[in-house]
Amino acid sequence: MANLSASLASTADDVITCKAAVAYEPNKPLTLEEIHVAPPEPSEVRIKITNGAICQTDLYYLKGKDADKIFPRIFGHEGAGVVESVGSDIKNLKRGDKVIPAWMAECKKCPKCLRGKSNICDTLVYNWSNGFMPSDKKTTRFSKASNGMPINHFFGTSTFSQYTVCDEACVAKINPEADLSKVCLLGCGVPTGIGSAWNIAKVTPGSSVAVFGLGTIGLSVVEGAKVAGASMIIGIDRDDHKLKQGLEWGLTDTLNTCGLAKPIEAIIKEMTDDQGVDFSFDCTGNPGVIYSAMECANPAGGVAVILGLMDSSKEISFHPSKLLWGKSWTSGLFGGFKGRSQLPDLVDKCVEGVINLDHYITHKMPFSEINKAVELLEKGECLRCVMDYDR
Amino acid sequence: MANLSASLASTADDVITCKAAVAYEPNKPLTLEEIHVAPPEPSEVRIKITNGAICQTDLYYLKGKDADKIFPRIFGHEGAGVVESVGSDIKNLKRGDKVIPAWMAECKKCPKCLRGKSNICDTLVYNWSNGFMPSDKKTTRFSKASNGMPINHFFGTSTFSQYTVCDEACVAKINPEADLSKVCLLGCGVPTGIGSAWNIAKVTPGSSVAVFGLGTIGLSVVEGAKVAGASMIIGIDRDDHKLKQGLEWGLTDTLNTCGLAKPIEAIIKEMTDDQGVDFSFDCTGNPGVIYSAMECANPAGGVAVILGLMDSSKEISFHPSKLLWGKSWTSGLFGGFKGRSQLPDLVDKCVEGVINLDHYITHKMPFSEINKAVELLEKGECLRCVMDYDR
Ligand SMILES: NC(=O)c1ccc[n+]([C@@H]2O[C@H](COP(=O)([O-])OP(=O)(O)OC[C@H]3O[C@@H](n4cnc5c(N)ncnc54)[C@H](O)[C@@H]3O)[C@@H](O)[C@H]2O)c1
Ligand SMILES: NC(=O)c1ccc[n+]([C@@H]2O[C@H](COP(=O)([O-])OP(=O)(O)OC[C@H]3O[C@@H](n4cnc5c(N)ncnc54)[C@H](O)[C@@H]3O)[C@@H](O)[C@H]2O)c1
Ligand SMILES: [Zn+2]
Ligand SMILES: [Zn+2]
Ligand SMILES: [Zn+2]
Ligand SMILES: [Zn+2]
Repeated sequence: MANLSASLASTADDVITCKAAVAYEPNKPLTLEEIHVAPPEPSEVRIKITNGAICQTDLYYLKGKDADKIFPRIFGHEGAGVVESVGSDIKNLKRGDKVIPAWMAECKKCPKCLRGKSNICDTLVYNWSNGFMPSDKKTTRFSKASNGMPINHFFGTSTFSQYTVCDEACVAKINPEADLSKVCLLGCGVPTGIGSAWNIAKVTPGSSVAVFGLGTIGLSVVEGAKVAGASMIIGIDRDDHKLKQGLEWGLTDTLNTCGLAKPIEAIIKEMTDDQGVDFSFDCTGNPGVIYSAMECANPAGGVAVILGLMDSSKEISFHPSKLLWGKSWTSGLFGGFKGRSQLPDLVDKCVEGVINLDHYITHKMPFSEINKAVELLEKGECLRCVMDYDR
Repeated sequence: MANLSASLASTADDVITCKAAVAYEPNKPLTLEEIHVAPPEPSEVRIKITNGAICQTDLYYLKGKDADKIFPRIFGHEGAGVVESVGSDIKNLKRGDKVIPAWMAECKKCPKCLRGKSNICDTLVYNWSNGFMPSDKKTTRFSKASNGMPINHFFGTSTFSQYTVCDEACVAKINPEADLSKVCLLGCGVPTGIGSAWNIAKVTPGSSVAVFGLGTIGLSVVEGAKVAGASMIIGIDRDDHKLKQGLEWGLTDTLNTCGLAKPIEAIIKEMTDDQGVDFSFDCTGNPGVIYSAMECANPAGGVAVILGLMDSSKEISFHPSKLLWGKSWTSGLFGGFKGRSQLPDLVDKCVEGVINLDHYITHKMPFSEINKAVELLEKGECLRCVMDYDR
């Protein structure tokens, strides 16, 4: 750490030139190039990213499935690093601190944070559909090195860059013992899944659970449901490899959606003595799957949780009679965890060995090969590919 | 009571001839005529209805808005009466007992009842879309006196008849002190509203609430929310008289949906410091209102409850991003109360004066004028019109 601080010593107030993976337009490979990263404004923090991974949500935006389609932009929201410099108003963070950029912002002072009834924060709401810094809502800290063109931020994190600037609301200070090449995964996927089982659905002991889509989000739902004591955990995917892999996470049953003779909800009804599951989770973002996941939850008080992000150009149609016997349809971000006040606890749980991140890391790669990592996730060939940003 | 028992004494095993209001086809006035009511089968109870009212759900089926459109049928599910005779297996009910026919069936032995996680019962599920008795699923106890044509049951209650036959699962034995001309309202509307605030939404002290549609269901939601300590209760209706009336129930704000300059959800957002309400309730069954009620709930953890029955030929379209910040969309029947084990407590609360039913009774009428009562509810000119079945 002393070494790292020393190596950063000269950059504090300067513009930093580093490598980033810039998205110039939808559905094109990322452009790995030199960018300038401006010093942090008073409420901001500049972070040297050491490790990061790719979540399907990055690809959702990269493919322009969102309503805003903001480009050029630096994506990435699952990473970890070390504070390089802090703005003049920052009290609780200093150069050298290990941190996780938290897209699940928590400013601790907006009406939503003060109300305390959810993990949503006005800074998150702003970042969700804007590419500027939330402090002034009109500038970026990134620009293309060759011509100075501003490049937009993403989710308040933009971890596809060797250096990034985050608002204080988007920086979780973590245990200095943490292994950044592992806890970078706590930036999004794993807390989302585990927390969705614990905080959103509130899975109960002895209950039945159906998880649709067995990527990192789905598998971490499985992990959360198992810890919560679910006795039946049905995994559903279109990929046999994902189903087989899921058995290691604790699935009790598996179903491949391809070539089924009847609707999946009918099969799940049969598997659950005609009742449907107590809790269902969509971890795909596919409209048909979201509907099926709702259908397969017990009409009499079942809870269906939508976690996947669905193409903004589509809608879901349903009749309210589906909910009439007391079913709940809900959703949530980051598993209901708060970005700054709860994420550090999850890091501690990893340091203590309570949460095991290793089995989510199916691949490792230099940051310079990020387009390969994108392809792996797109093709469904990896869970998480952890990138080393020094290479 | 002695008198009543005596007057019933001769009928126990006979077919009873009495007046009923029969629906022969959708959207036509009910036909008041003589019917035959067969004696109860072993698991059944024959009840002399003394008082009853009409709920908008009766009109939903009378108008053929449901998927099944079963006719001829005897509607009615909000009534009270006295046991006339019981089937050979009935242990806990006897001639002369005061009862409320409970469409919210509770058999206490089906998988749903045994699971205990909701108030749904397999007998309810059967009755919901069938006109036969649940004991054999193929016969009715009603027939037209003049030609013997079978007439279908409704919701397991069919209270639009001077005598009805109910499965034991659909009969709540109540306090003998109860005034049947009042507690008949506990058959549906008032428990539905109060319970939806208490058991389904779980309204919390200091919270904000929006209630769409101020009929009996909506007003009893208002009553339940007030008892639960809500500090802001916004009533929404298209009828100024209903809004004014609602102030007596505890509304803090009113909004007429007619001629609004902007969407109602935008207005409610403004009224709640840009947050939306903590809890919203649709008590209309109108698709647009159901959507607005969902929209106006706080995206960050608000709960939207659908209580109205929506035309089965329509659907609602939405994008799951509406729920993404942790909003829940749910529904429920009979306010989440169980028909036999919880309804008697509500009757006791009325006998003790804790729940006041008087203000829901805007009209009284002889049963023979039931078509007038239907018209009053249809035109929005009454809350509940209590009918006297001896006239
Ligand atoms: N709500 C949140 O806070 C949050 C956070 C992170 C990710 N997400 C979303 O969660 C979803 C999953 O993310 P991930 O990183 O685990 O993705 P992933 O691509 O690794 O996993 C998705 C899995 O779903 C399966 N799948 C996809 N479509 C399917 C279909 N039609 N039928 C059956 N199986 C199907 C795939 O085979 C794959 O195993 C994405 O939509 C992502 O945007 C939401
Ligand atoms: N979920 C349940 O267990 C349950 C039980 C009973 C009734 N219901 C349903 O609840 C609903 C209300 O029943 P009720 O007996 O109170 O009916 P009601 O007719 O007395 O009240 C409905 C109110 O909604 C208002 N309204 C209707 N459409 C509107 C619109 N488009 N915009 C604004 N206001 C509108 C009317 O003016 C009226 O005041 C019905 O759909 C009924 O089927 C459900
Ligand atoms: Zn905040
Ligand atoms: Zn993510
Ligand atoms: Zn009713
Ligand atoms: Zn039952």
